[in-house]
Amino acid sequence: MTPHMSDAERFQRLKRFFNNRDRLCKCLGIEVTDIGHGTATTRMVIEDKHMNGADVVQGGAIFTLADLAFGAACNSHGTLALGVNMSIAYTKPGVSGSLTAHARETAAAGPLSTYVVEVKDDSGETIATFQGTAYRKRDKIDLSAWG
Amino acid sequence: MTPHMSDAERFQRLKRFFNNRDRLCKCLGIEVTDIGHGTATTRMVIEDKHMNGADVVQGGAIFTLADLAFGAACNSHGTLALGVNMSIAYTKPGVSGSLTAHARETAAAGPLSTYVVEVKDDSGETIATFQGTAYRKRDKIDLSAWG
Amino acid sequence: MTPHMSDAERFQRLKRFFNNRDRLCKCLGIEVTDIGHGTATTRMVIEDKHMNGADVVQGGAIFTLADLAFGAACNSHGTLALGVNMSIAYTKPGVSGSLTAHARETAAAGPLSTYVVEVKDDSGETIATFQGTAYRKRDKIDLSAWG
Amino acid sequence: MTPHMSDAERFQRLKRFFNNRDRLCKCLGIEVTDIGHGTATTRMVIEDKHMNGADVVQGGAIFTLADLAFGAACNSHGTLALGVNMSIAYTKPGVSGSLTAHARETAAAGPLSTYVVEVKDDSGETIATFQGTAYRKRDKIDLSAWG
Repeated sequence: MTPHMSDAERFQRLKRFFNNRDRLCKCLGIEVTDIGHGTATTRMVIEDKHMNGADVVQGGAIFTLADLAFGAACNSHGTLALGVNMSIAYTKPGVSGSLTAHARETAAAGPLSTYVVEVKDDSGETIATFQGTAYRKRDKIDLSAWG
Repeated sequence: MTPHMSDAERFQRLKRFFNNRDRLCKCLGIEVTDIGHGTATTRMVIEDKHMNGADVVQGGAIFTLADLAFGAACNSHGTLALGVNMSIAYTKPGVSGSLTAHARETAAAGPLSTYVVEVKDDSGETIATFQGTAYRKRDKIDLSAWG
Repeated sequence: MTPHMSDAERFQRLKRFFNNRDRLCKCLGIEVTDIGHGTATTRMVIEDKHMNGADVVQGGAIFTLADLAFGAACNSHGTLALGVNMSIAYTKPGVSGSLTAHARETAAAGPLSTYVVEVKDDSGETIATFQGTAYRKRDKIDLSAWG
Repeated sequence: MTPHMSDAERFQRLKRFFNNRDRLCKCLGIEVTDIGHGTATTRMVIEDKHMNGADVVQGGAIFTLADLAFGAACNSHGTLALGVNMSIAYTKPGVSGSLTAHARETAAAGPLSTYVVEVKDDSGETIATFQGTAYRKRDKIDLSAWG
């Protein structure tokens, strides 16, 4: 049984869970750096393995970075949420340095919740805007192993 | 020829243009109430003609309200922008009173720009989150008739 | 109580239900013309009231046409389905004549189902491609009044 | 200068280009298996590195698989196309075996083209439906190195 824990403790454990158990993100060097109430931030240092044929960051790497921020944000309330639908618009290529994604909850009434994620490069310019919808189940997330 | 005009004057004329020339929005009672730099607000008082078979506001009316805010925001810079792609997530039904949509630019580097629009009811709860991408042409919008 | 009815009878009643009860579609002259298993077709004759400021069909009218096809297709199985998320890409302006939208189910395993809708003009060219996701409830749709 | 080449030759070279130069896809074991006129197929054998914290294939891996099919299809005409906007709906988790994505062009009039991609597992069931919009430039793709 998971004893009662503070929000701060839950955010810490959730971060450990994502950073240890999401193998795609480990493979790609994508990390959750922060989780709050309905918010999360992720980060990726651009490497050669993220590049596409045109020598800019492949859209799939940017999507995965945004998707992890969305996943961490929609699970921040302590109950399980599953991604249903995502949309992404690319406005600037990612070239070098690091990329940061920040997710913010725009709605969470009823079984569905929606998030907007902005992905920025080191100059602070938005390279992609992502929108994600999650379906919220009633199951609690078991974080007992991540204390 | 359109003489040089202030931003405030351009926003006023653009608002008049949309509220007079967008016949779908006139038909549906949707109005632009405010335009700024990369932002816009629209409003619709819910009427019977907006309802679907389940007696809540039809998704198409909510989309049109959000789309007009997007269209006004992406044309706020004075050059023509065309909507390319939109995505909308519904989280709460619209039932009565009025709905308000607010568009905010998240990126505008290069030929593409992206906007997030949140649609809220009178209680301030988000009923839909919309994301739109526009293609920006170099043509100036002719607002000489709307002074 | 609704007695057992054939699929053909259910499709007929569902069509009557949409064409009589969806007031937004009635207001805009959008009609369901056909419903099958996970498919539906809708039609709209372009009128002045559908136009935007650039004198082409407003995106919201095209969205509503596609959305009605999606709504009819995802409710074709006899149990209630609610639209969760939609995405639309515009590729050609709608100018005159009529527009037709055809929805096709791409997935329907578990509580979520997904549909692709193509909107074409009279020349058979695609003017918009729409994707919709629905959440399927267990409730039966009551069609007893539409025989 | 690239001498004139047949469509079949161009499709072969394009496939080689993607499978050698897209480093993200190489890292994830995602391959283009087929390219035609406005169509493409990609494949990925599920491995531990694709998994998320819930032990199913991470959404980002499925997105990347679909996105590569989209990228190959929208570049199949020989001129450069850039992905602008994508939307993905997940309907069934990916668990084991392989996943295949097939892209089909739904519209390609003017500078924008739109594609629908269906991702299926070995049982033939759709696990995700993807929609992508590309902006088509006039530049020819240089495939001289890939003969």
